[in-house]
Amino acid sequence: MAIKVAINGYGTIGKRVADAVDAQDDMELVGVTKTSPSFGCELAQRKGFPLFCTSDSAASIAAFATGGFECHGGISDLLALADIVIDCSPGITGDENIARYRGAGKKFIFQGGEKHALTGQSFSSSANYSENLGVAGTRVVSCNTTGLSRTLVPLYEACGSLKVECTMIRRAADPGDSTKGPINAIKPVLEVPSHHGPDVMTVKPEIEINSLAVAVPTTIMHVHSIIADLPEGHGMSTDSVLEMWKATPRVIVMSGVENRITSTAEVMEMARDIGRKWGDLHEIFVWEDGVSLLGDRLYYFQAIHQESDVIPENVDAIRALMGVESDWRASVAKTDAAIKAYYGI
Amino acid sequence: MAIKVAINGYGTIGKRVADAVDAQDDMELVGVTKTSPSFGCELAQRKGFPLFCTSDSAASIAAFATGGFECHGGISDLLALADIVIDCSPGITGDENIARYRGAGKKFIFQGGEKHALTGQSFSSSANYSENLGVAGTRVVSCNTTGLSRTLVPLYEACGSLKVECTMIRRAADPGDSTKGPINAIKPVLEVPSHHGPDVMTVKPEIEINSLAVAVPTTIMHVHSIIADLPEGHGMSTDSVLEMWKATPRVIVMSGVENRITSTAEVMEMARDIGRKWGDLHEIFVWEDGVSLLGDRLYYFQAIHQESDVIPENVDAIRALMGVESDWRASVAKTDAAIKAYYGI
Amino acid sequence: MAIKVAINGYGTIGKRVADAVDAQDDMELVGVTKTSPSFGCELAQRKGFPLFCTSDSAASIAAFATGGFECHGGISDLLALADIVIDCSPGITGDENIARYRGAGKKFIFQGGEKHALTGQSFSSSANYSENLGVAGTRVVSCNTTGLSRTLVPLYEACGSLKVECTMIRRAADPGDSTKGPINAIKPVLEVPSHHGPDVMTVKPEIEINSLAVAVPTTIMHVHSIIADLPEGHGMSTDSVLEMWKATPRVIVMSGVENRITSTAEVMEMARDIGRKWGDLHEIFVWEDGVSLLGDRLYYFQAIHQESDVIPENVDAIRALMGVESDWRASVAKTDAAIKAYYGI
Amino acid sequence: MAIKVAINGYGTIGKRVADAVDAQDDMELVGVTKTSPSFGCELAQRKGFPLFCTSDSAASIAAFATGGFECHGGISDLLALADIVIDCSPGITGDENIARYRGAGKKFIFQGGEKHALTGQSFSSSANYSENLGVAGTRVVSCNTTGLSRTLVPLYEACGSLKVECTMIRRAADPGDSTKGPINAIKPVLEVPSHHGPDVMTVKPEIEINSLAVAVPTTIMHVHSIIADLPEGHGMSTDSVLEMWKATPRVIVMSGVENRITSTAEVMEMARDIGRKWGDLHEIFVWEDGVSLLGDRLYYFQAIHQESDVIPENVDAIRALMGVESDWRASVAKTDAAIKAYYGI
Repeated sequence: MAIKVAINGYGTIGKRVADAVDAQDDMELVGVTKTSPSFGCELAQRKGFPLFCTSDSAASIAAFATGGFECHGGISDLLALADIVIDCSPGITGDENIARYRGAGKKFIFQGGEKHALTGQSFSSSANYSENLGVAGTRVVSCNTTGLSRTLVPLYEACGSLKVECTMIRRAADPGDSTKGPINAIKPVLEVPSHHGPDVMTVKPEIEINSLAVAVPTTIMHVHSIIADLPEGHGMSTDSVLEMWKATPRVIVMSGVENRITSTAEVMEMARDIGRKWGDLHEIFVWEDGVSLLGDRLYYFQAIHQESDVIPENVDAIRALMGVESDWRASVAKTDAAIKAYYGI
Repeated sequence: MAIKVAINGYGTIGKRVADAVDAQDDMELVGVTKTSPSFGCELAQRKGFPLFCTSDSAASIAAFATGGFECHGGISDLLALADIVIDCSPGITGDENIARYRGAGKKFIFQGGEKHALTGQSFSSSANYSENLGVAGTRVVSCNTTGLSRTLVPLYEACGSLKVECTMIRRAADPGDSTKGPINAIKPVLEVPSHHGPDVMTVKPEIEINSLAVAVPTTIMHVHSIIADLPEGHGMSTDSVLEMWKATPRVIVMSGVENRITSTAEVMEMARDIGRKWGDLHEIFVWEDGVSLLGDRLYYFQAIHQESDVIPENVDAIRALMGVESDWRASVAKTDAAIKAYYGI
Repeated sequence: MAIKVAINGYGTIGKRVADAVDAQDDMELVGVTKTSPSFGCELAQRKGFPLFCTSDSAASIAAFATGGFECHGGISDLLALADIVIDCSPGITGDENIARYRGAGKKFIFQGGEKHALTGQSFSSSANYSENLGVAGTRVVSCNTTGLSRTLVPLYEACGSLKVECTMIRRAADPGDSTKGPINAIKPVLEVPSHHGPDVMTVKPEIEINSLAVAVPTTIMHVHSIIADLPEGHGMSTDSVLEMWKATPRVIVMSGVENRITSTAEVMEMARDIGRKWGDLHEIFVWEDGVSLLGDRLYYFQAIHQESDVIPENVDAIRALMGVESDWRASVAKTDAAIKAYYGI
Repeated sequence: MAIKVAINGYGTIGKRVADAVDAQDDMELVGVTKTSPSFGCELAQRKGFPLFCTSDSAASIAAFATGGFECHGGISDLLALADIVIDCSPGITGDENIARYRGAGKKFIFQGGEKHALTGQSFSSSANYSENLGVAGTRVVSCNTTGLSRTLVPLYEACGSLKVECTMIRRAADPGDSTKGPINAIKPVLEVPSHHGPDVMTVKPEIEINSLAVAVPTTIMHVHSIIADLPEGHGMSTDSVLEMWKATPRVIVMSGVENRITSTAEVMEMARDIGRKWGDLHEIFVWEDGVSLLGDRLYYFQAIHQESDVIPENVDAIRALMGVESDWRASVAKTDAAIKAYYGI
């Protein structure tokens, strides 16, 4: 029987997770929520996803009809239909929401905008899927942490230990955001080291990692400039690292020079070319010609598609929490194949 | 029997036109060309489009096999299979190509990067479809001219005369282009008036129009700031203009404030949300709250998706030149419905 | 005896006006205000400008000493020393401040961020200097209105009537602002026509003008794309318009192509090259090769340095209000010569 | 007797070095060169700097008169007048120029755009001034290498050894450049490690250093994200590192949060505020709140003003090569005081 999934918050992340869940044959999307009538409601109705209100207020629910949308009830009504809820709300309401989910006796998954402390459990498909088997709730780590896990976890497993420093060059605003800056400036995050890198340790405590971050005036993709110290006697070479990543799920390794993919703009253009919905790229992009292992120190660049790399991770997290699949690689393969079939790509 | 269509040049425009042609039940895509093996070839092969070489040189053709791609021959081989060819090459080879197409006795369609003089005939679905019925060759006008035709032609037809001034605020580079600037500057086009506006007169000579243009550091959409003088006794109002455009094919009229679509970034996000391939928007976007008719002078803003608004126009142009459909509205409706069905949106 | 000038607000505009006043031999800067101790206080002390507090609160005044700065008192103490006050405060405190200035019996000058209604009188050196002779208070119009006045007033005077449309391509943020966007978007101002152009009529009601505006992701200079309809029988030519502007104070006319000044970035680089403080450009920049008179319609582009074109206008306004100079051209010449001598350029 | 200095190339760097040399009482600027008549010639004439031609061709020299400029001869004429020449030409003519200078028997200084191998000797005031005493020619290292030397050399001297990794976030274009991109992209330099960091070893071979670089769409300042490993028992603390840098010439240490200088835009605004010509900042800017020493690993951010940090270094290099001052700190103090007095700041 299909797992009944509710999505609380149908915005940038929620609308993507909804499609990804809808694509799976072992899951059923029982509804999505919006705060009030808006363009997102029209999108949900086009897709045929039942619409609920993020609150239980009768007035708020009634407002949807006025806006021309059919609202099936409040968040409590939606939770009653579900086995598990994916929280994709803006992330300042975590405490209130977790109490509500627990009160309704439902499993729950939060996003990386929330702190680890909220759930006490975090999730990354390649890092700690098995630790999440059957738990009541978890947090899918942020886009950056997910990206670091993808390339660092297999490296750690191949080497036995890792010490990592990452400088994150962060896009300043979402593509659809027309208010944030800076326009012509580089802005260092004056928290040194920053919180981004160490968040990896919530899913893989064995990896020692710190990070620095700067914001730059772009709207597409973060770039990580990474230095990883491998243990003595690691036995790896630049080529063997590349081979390893080429065999890793949700990692793309391509030559920038040969393919004329020399910047994040061209990475995104490739994602559009291969027909990805919203021009998304669920995979982490590693420039093959930007990887270099000198002695024990590995240098590389990777690019992260902020609003989409965590999407398939949410699907895997559902399977882990519901206990329907114990092998992370099997879940990842199933998730990704279903999404590709769904979009016909 | 389906019209056999060849596409010469499988780049930014060519790859989009290929899909749009492939979507039509009265057309058959017989092949696309590339200069040499590259990522675009892989894309064509994934789609199942037969690949040809832009030249007839045996060495150039053989190079594809070395790159791992199956090449079915040179441009002459492709032309032999086709009824009509869409020229989507970079646009500096117009003279050479037109001679080749004429030599092969095939109909041909060029893009707006070429001058009107090359073909002596231009095309815009809403402006002069019928003038193109059965002709040997034409030129689909540029993205900007297409955008101006979409909103100005119905206005002209409602009023009987029009005098227009347009300031074009142009994105400086394509989204996948990582070399062009300016980064922090506004760059006026020091050709005053610019050639952009008057190009409308190649498809609708009755509209008197001039334009000024500036380039700005963005990669998504051009914006037109338009002033149109209507004749005395025009009988229009702001509301009647809006109603007219809402009923016009390939024009979207939406309130910016109500829908939080206040910039080109948000227009493009909407296009991604509704599932458009490459995040394209074939329609011209008019901000409803940016339209104002004061006396005889109409003010409005519209946004143009540079790489996609001409795509469906190419499909219509095929029908006009082949003489299979005499009513432009019927062709437009058929083209657009087929594209939507093709992408499942 | 020198005119005693107070400056209320020592920020982006205030610090520039302070230098410009300090440069004049018929004026004495008696003090500048800051809200609280900050980097601006250090700047005032380096320059030797007496520092006062924007409020009269003893606690606020005392805070300066804690920050290591000498504060000479509150705004009332400063007003007591002055003949006239230039209000350079952020512009949300106009009503409160005007009452204070009137209560102290002092003349006052506001900036273009305030509405005309606040003072009932506006000022632009070339447009209406003489109307401001001896009045109690005025408002120096905004950077955009000042820029339009500079080129349109002499044109009006040469022709006898003018009908103008202007599209303003506005930089989105100040150079020192690292928070505002949009980053990769063009944002139309959905007030059509916008309020910018018609503000010219507060200083030259005879010029009929409307405007449209868009914001773009740059931090340097606004650009105006202008269409001006001259009356029949105007007798002007492109060349005579250029000659007229070359003879107009505070207007620079240069060929973009010959001087490789093809964008606002290069205009600003020229301002730095010729040694202007802060890289400012008090003049309006007109691209010579962007001016074209076709029949009765004149097309041109001009660039406006947002934070500095109004600076010398404030100095002229002081002379007008104090009634010490009745000829606007004489004041302008004196102001500009003194500023150049002050900076040694 | 003053050292006679020629400057070959009066562009972005040359015009700044010319002023800096002109400011020194122990130096005399005997002339600057331009390739052909242009705006730079006017600038030189305004400053009263004798103008020469970069070639000895009679036709090229004569062209200046046609352009309305007085040309005093060719490069050979200029060299004949000089004791030393500063090469500020675009940097593709190094081999040809060095032969010319040697042929004329003159000392010479190249810029960091040239490779170390050209001269076999490099220069950074704080790193290796004394090694340059009396040599025939040298190369002032690039803006980035100069910036790294400023903060790393004193750190090395305090600790005895250093191992450094630096990620350079580079502005993509000069402020006056309106052609280069990328506009909305982050572009990694696919040379890993990059050549930038190791260039420090041309002036301080004892510092072990590697670097990675990315280009971002800004025109002002590079930012370095630095990780430096100190030797065991280094005895330093975050505070002692800050105290050391505060006492280091040409390094500015300021709190970003307290001074609202949170990005490169605001650093540059401060430079304009304190009256620096061209808005330049000769000093390296270190964010005080971005420095953190954790165990043996030091993290910090610094910002580099690309077109100006090397300017005073060129002046020091003249003194070193001419052997008129043996103490680097004395030269630096003299250079900087003279520049400040020259601009009256």
